[in-house]
Amino acid sequence: MSTSTPLRSLNINNINPHVREAQYAVRGELATRAESYRAKLKKGHPPTPPDESLPFDTVISANIGNPQQLDQKPITFFRQVLSVLEYPPLLENEDVLINSLGYKQDVIDRARWLLSEVNSVGAYSQSQGVPGIRNSVATYIERRDGYPSDPGNVFLSAGASSGVNTLMNVICAKPETGILVPIPQYPLYTATLAVLNARCVPYYLDESRAWGTDLSAIKSAYQKAKEEGTDVRAIVVINPGNPTGASLSPEDVRSVIEFAAEEKLVVLADEVYQTNIFIGKFTSFKKGLRDLQKEQPKRFDNVELASLNSISKGMVGECGHRGGYFELVGFDNEVQAQIYKFVSIMLCAPVVGQCLVEMQVNPPREGDPSYPLYKQEWDGIAQGLQKRATALFEAFKDMEGVVCQEPQGSMYLYPTITLPPRALAQAERDRRAPDAFYCFRLLDATGVCVVPGSGFGQREGTLHFRTTFLAPGTEWVGRIRRFHEGFMEEFRG
Amino acid sequence: MSTSTPLRSLNINNINPHVREAQYAVRGELATRAESYRAKLKKGHPPTPPDESLPFDTVISANIGNPQQLDQKPITFFRQVLSVLEYPPLLENEDVLINSLGYKQDVIDRARWLLSEVNSVGAYSQSQGVPGIRNSVATYIERRDGYPSDPGNVFLSAGASSGVNTLMNVICAKPETGILVPIPQYPLYTATLAVLNARCVPYYLDESRAWGTDLSAIKSAYQKAKEEGTDVRAIVVINPGNPTGASLSPEDVRSVIEFAAEEKLVVLADEVYQTNIFIGKFTSFKKGLRDLQKEQPKRFDNVELASLNSISKGMVGECGHRGGYFELVGFDNEVQAQIYKFVSIMLCAPVVGQCLVEMQVNPPREGDPSYPLYKQEWDGIAQGLQKRATALFEAFKDMEGVVCQEPQGSMYLYPTITLPPRALAQAERDRRAPDAFYCFRLLDATGVCVVPGSGFGQREGTLHFRTTFLAPGTEWVGRIRRFHEGFMEEFRG
Repeated sequence: MSTSTPLRSLNINNINPHVREAQYAVRGELATRAESYRAKLKKGHPPTPPDESLPFDTVISANIGNPQQLDQKPITFFRQVLSVLEYPPLLENEDVLINSLGYKQDVIDRARWLLSEVNSVGAYSQSQGVPGIRNSVATYIERRDGYPSDPGNVFLSAGASSGVNTLMNVICAKPETGILVPIPQYPLYTATLAVLNARCVPYYLDESRAWGTDLSAIKSAYQKAKEEGTDVRAIVVINPGNPTGASLSPEDVRSVIEFAAEEKLVVLADEVYQTNIFIGKFTSFKKGLRDLQKEQPKRFDNVELASLNSISKGMVGECGHRGGYFELVGFDNEVQAQIYKFVSIMLCAPVVGQCLVEMQVNPPREGDPSYPLYKQEWDGIAQGLQKRATALFEAFKDMEGVVCQEPQGSMYLYPTITLPPRALAQAERDRRAPDAFYCFRLLDATGVCVVPGSGFGQREGTLHFRTTFLAPGTEWVGRIRRFHEGFMEEFRG
Repeated sequence: MSTSTPLRSLNINNINPHVREAQYAVRGELATRAESYRAKLKKGHPPTPPDESLPFDTVISANIGNPQQLDQKPITFFRQVLSVLEYPPLLENEDVLINSLGYKQDVIDRARWLLSEVNSVGAYSQSQGVPGIRNSVATYIERRDGYPSDPGNVFLSAGASSGVNTLMNVICAKPETGILVPIPQYPLYTATLAVLNARCVPYYLDESRAWGTDLSAIKSAYQKAKEEGTDVRAIVVINPGNPTGASLSPEDVRSVIEFAAEEKLVVLADEVYQTNIFIGKFTSFKKGLRDLQKEQPKRFDNVELASLNSISKGMVGECGHRGGYFELVGFDNEVQAQIYKFVSIMLCAPVVGQCLVEMQVNPPREGDPSYPLYKQEWDGIAQGLQKRATALFEAFKDMEGVVCQEPQGSMYLYPTITLPPRALAQAERDRRAPDAFYCFRLLDATGVCVVPGSGFGQREGTLHFRTTFLAPGTEWVGRIRRFHEGFMEEFRG
């Protein structure tokens, strides 16, 4: 890399201004600094003593929902099947797999079946995804909701992010196009809208009701946008919530669909945390919509819904494999054909990721040889998440100036923090937002990386941060608590 | 899916017009029809007799460079390592891997090292790619070109397509932004420019010089675009060529760089076929640029080059794993930071694909236990490609009205076809471009799917089609020859 010069074609002032405007804090300066600390602490080859100048011995990446980077073990069944998909000649040694390596018969059967569907995981699949895998997804959705699902409406994608990117590319027709986005939100949404030069129409979630949707807030945001000339075309809902950890009630789901029907908005339901539920039960938007259609077909039959899921979250946590899908409901045929064309330009989603989607939606069942271990691993991960969520929540309850909603779902807590005026003043001198100032101090003191609320959006005058509860153990929760005490002491008025 | 209605939010007339305008023929109607024939011929579960109404018993997908869908076997070393990466507990049974399954020690060593770099293939990596893998890429580039490469300038991507998408998103600043694109071209380029609402500035390759670049054609295309108010910012070169099969001479490479330096254009060098060379030697744009910089630093030091590579092509052919990389040379720091931010929105490239990139650029060497088999597999694939390329070329030489350049590189031939006037008239009645008409007839009669030249671009009044030479055997070449004879007979004036 070299410095700016007018001798080049590209400089910061003449590249795509919409790319320049996009913000994505989850992987910004804080994350980069955390990585540099991690590199300092890493023993080299040949071994060198790690850097001892840092006041901590591990970096805790609580900034991003990346379970396996934080030592969550993958589900054995999934990975045994993948090992065979990657090297099919293993099937010529079934006895070795079974007798020497402990693979069960259902691992071998699943691998054979997936290979018959994909031919090779090294081959491009159909752009919409492997047909047999889309069938499995449709079957899963049917079982989940009690309503039919058509595999012709299922699109496999490289994680949910890629699905969101596809849908937004198709929807955003002009600079006046707007999409309702919850605040706080996962910044993929605002970043993608910025790149596409379309408008984010923010609606605030109701922190006082555990970050539920607030219909009046949605309506007034919509009204205001319309008055400003925005052509609002869709509404994003993230359920369970990111960064909020909320799990929407059936009534909240219903009210969003009613509003979408009334105003003819596409519902973009980001449901990647659908199995990360601590309180209550997950209500899918598909089920909510079908229920309403049964009651009042005329009013709801034309609602367009795209619901997204991912292998990166849940107890699966296979982020690096980049798998996911979205199901389209009620979309116009010609529009759906354009979505197909758009995804075909990038050829296909990673085929191994597609195979993981298949196993995620069609895991071992009771009675299958791999079921007992699968169940044990699943429950272990779920309990670990619950335990750490509770530990964090309890810690936040005790911390001065920190208020946190009870964990309901997803992988995150999003506490409010109230900082002393002298901390705000210091942040201003450091030219940082106050929440970012707090997060940098936390990282530098403890090695714990979280993301400031300004990366997700928050009501003016409020401050938050988002932390995952994925890191193993709860020792690091103590680090946060001790840091916070010291920080408050340091800046007390 | 349901039919168009004004009750919906989205219809074909109000979605993003730039998505609507994009064309991507490689996976269009012909490919869809070929897939439907394949489904008809497939035996079901439980077995049903295949459809016998079709005049062929297999579909030959010569429309897309997808080697493993056409039964090219993956390289054993790569896949053995991947099987271990997917299921690391295999490393607890090294003796079984070695003694019962035939894995070599270098497979195990490589898997251990990659695991130490990625932690888990199920974890997100750094957005730019796993640092250790970027080191291997830089080492490969250094060895290939004889010039240093900085891993900080290497970005791992989900295939080269995703890299092209990233670069074009950053470059295309406004509707007047233009990028020079060779004609014929791989339609990713025009499709992406359409989606980004920027201008394709076409320059014709010289069919009479085996599809080499023609500097005067580039210059006049550039001049014309400037006069029309286009702000030309980059030039795409595909070497070896897709769909042309050309392999550029060092002189052609040099002249493109000289032109780019003169007009301050970014060079986007699509070099995904760099190991698919039949005649001569591959000259990378990086080497071309460094050579020129050594001679005349002042003139060439600020040239910006992005060169792309992929695991989908070469003898690797791991399309479904979606891996690739691009190296940036001479880019402005701030612009490079924007490229980083853009890729971070999609989190990271598939990690298994990244691991395949590592093995592609750092395969077993002479003396390594896996080398003999690796060498044998590599040579077998290379010879098979060469053999089928020659068989196709020879067949085309004998076919009436068909003229084809000698195969030099990549995976394609792109013959000119001259059709009888009565065929052109029939095509017009069928409302198809004449080359598309020919390709549909070929598919319906033989099961061989190729792509009409209109999908890649061709000089007005000329007709072509692109065929890969990946399908096993050469029997299908005979199918094309027989079809062509019959076709010419049918439409003879």
